[in-house]
Amino acid sequence: MLIEQERAGVEAGNISSAMLRVAAQEMAHDIDHAFDLLLEQPDDPRRRLYDAMRHASIGGGKRLRPLLVKAAGDLFSLDHAQVVRVGLAVECIHVYSLVHDDLPAMDDDDLRRGKPTVHKAFDEATAILAGDCLHDLAFEILVSEETHPDPFIRCELIKALALASGPAGMAGGQMMDLEAENAQFDLPTVTRLQQLKTGAIIGFCIEAAAIMGHVPLEARTGLHGYARDIGLAFQIADDLLDVEGDEAAVGKALGKDSVAGKQTFVSLLGVERARQQAQVLVEQAKAHLHDHGERAELLRAIADYIIERDR
Amino acid sequence: MLIEQERAGVEAGNISSAMLRVAAQEMAHDIDHAFDLLLEQPDDPRRRLYDAMRHASIGGGKRLRPLLVKAAGDLFSLDHAQVVRVGLAVECIHVYSLVHDDLPAMDDDDLRRGKPTVHKAFDEATAILAGDCLHDLAFEILVSEETHPDPFIRCELIKALALASGPAGMAGGQMMDLEAENAQFDLPTVTRLQQLKTGAIIGFCIEAAAIMGHVPLEARTGLHGYARDIGLAFQIADDLLDVEGDEAAVGKALGKDSVAGKQTFVSLLGVERARQQAQVLVEQAKAHLHDHGERAELLRAIADYIIERDR
Repeated sequence: MLIEQERAGVEAGNISSAMLRVAAQEMAHDIDHAFDLLLEQPDDPRRRLYDAMRHASIGGGKRLRPLLVKAAGDLFSLDHAQVVRVGLAVECIHVYSLVHDDLPAMDDDDLRRGKPTVHKAFDEATAILAGDCLHDLAFEILVSEETHPDPFIRCELIKALALASGPAGMAGGQMMDLEAENAQFDLPTVTRLQQLKTGAIIGFCIEAAAIMGHVPLEARTGLHGYARDIGLAFQIADDLLDVEGDEAAVGKALGKDSVAGKQTFVSLLGVERARQQAQVLVEQAKAHLHDHGERAELLRAIADYIIERDR
Repeated sequence: MLIEQERAGVEAGNISSAMLRVAAQEMAHDIDHAFDLLLEQPDDPRRRLYDAMRHASIGGGKRLRPLLVKAAGDLFSLDHAQVVRVGLAVECIHVYSLVHDDLPAMDDDDLRRGKPTVHKAFDEATAILAGDCLHDLAFEILVSEETHPDPFIRCELIKALALASGPAGMAGGQMMDLEAENAQFDLPTVTRLQQLKTGAIIGFCIEAAAIMGHVPLEARTGLHGYARDIGLAFQIADDLLDVEGDEAAVGKALGKDSVAGKQTFVSLLGVERARQQAQVLVEQAKAHLHDHGERAELLRAIADYIIERDR
């Protein structure tokens, strides 16, 4: 009986990881295609700027954030084209933040997704401007009728994205991360840092689907819980990869946090407890989805993937 | 008779320059106050980020762009509080662009508005993030119900600002400006560069008032003409200040364009023809306002001021 249950579990796991693989491939294709159209190079001296944006955004990355919009969108049968538009906007923000974070004055990284970073392939000034432009494009995409016909919904999406990416979200978390080099943050402070730095944008992906799905605020608690839990699990997995990962698979330099003397979930909890904590968070995240039945399959598969990935 | 006309002209000029002075003081106060509320420092490790944003945005600058929203808003009797909100958003974009343009990798400036630039007073990483955050705040402000109750109007404002600040506007112009160091641009290319780099945001200020004033697209031609003409006149005046200005009054390093070997209106036309051209543009700009009578007094005063200023 136990063996049968286990076998059924493994089969279900195989089916959902296959489903995730197909959905991820489709989304990666759709996002690349959308960036290709969005960033058509003009025949004037701005060409270099567009080349830099293309270098940063096309052909790489897990596209985890657009996939989260898609997975949460499945709960409300959202239109795929609208999901891709929102995914494209959030990816613009994600990519802009990577381009700026990689700059010499910030994390000073030479490699990203296995390719030279934008300031290495072009130059620092172009990298700053390319990031700034992707930042604008995110809002240009969300505000367009193509994303959603209802201006109220578009405003809700823009409000959520501006909050998630600005000083109360991602950029605020990045500032805390800079300060982490000069301070000994405790676990609650590291948790808050990561909730801002990576959690806020992950939260936006789920929130965006709820907004487009016309879910009333008071009915979003479970989804918020899912987003919070996978956001932290994602960061713990990142910290584990930073310690134990393979640079070739991850496509960027590793081990930098400990060199910089930054506290992370792993330095504070140790490898084993961090791994257990991530597992608990993923189970907790999936428990938040109990009302949604089969429609939440992709969200569950993403939760599992987040701590099993090698990059 | 001629003398009387001239005297009347001088008196009218005095009245409108007094009106401009009062409006500019009021707007400077309102914008400073709004930034002060917007950027209240949190009691956590993000404090440095807020301090940097406050350093960049409070207590300085001509606030010309908010004043333009106000002046164009006078045509349609727009609500002052809404005008200040839009002015605050556009000032967020303007200030963010100054913070990034001043970075060592870009124009490498130590002084702005007579104060150390943000990367000098803080550090480069903080300056990059402070710029990024002001960029987000611009959209956060525009999308709020406080700015306008109608989500359609808010979307129109956001669409116009994202276009004006991104690769098809200000940031695209800044890229052309970087390329200008390695190329010999001709007059049409320098004109296009400046229309993007400074003209697009000036255009947004006027467009924003037209959007909030429910002016149909086909009735905006004159306003677009005014914006285009004062945008170019503003840049010619800037190029003249770069050659002939007083660094103490301007509050930043001058003469940098000729050192960098960049073509400007002044290098291409010479000082005298550039001055005449700016004067022609200002007269042309005012001619676009003929339908608007007394309500356009502030717009006319700004056009005159733009080429008479010493900073």
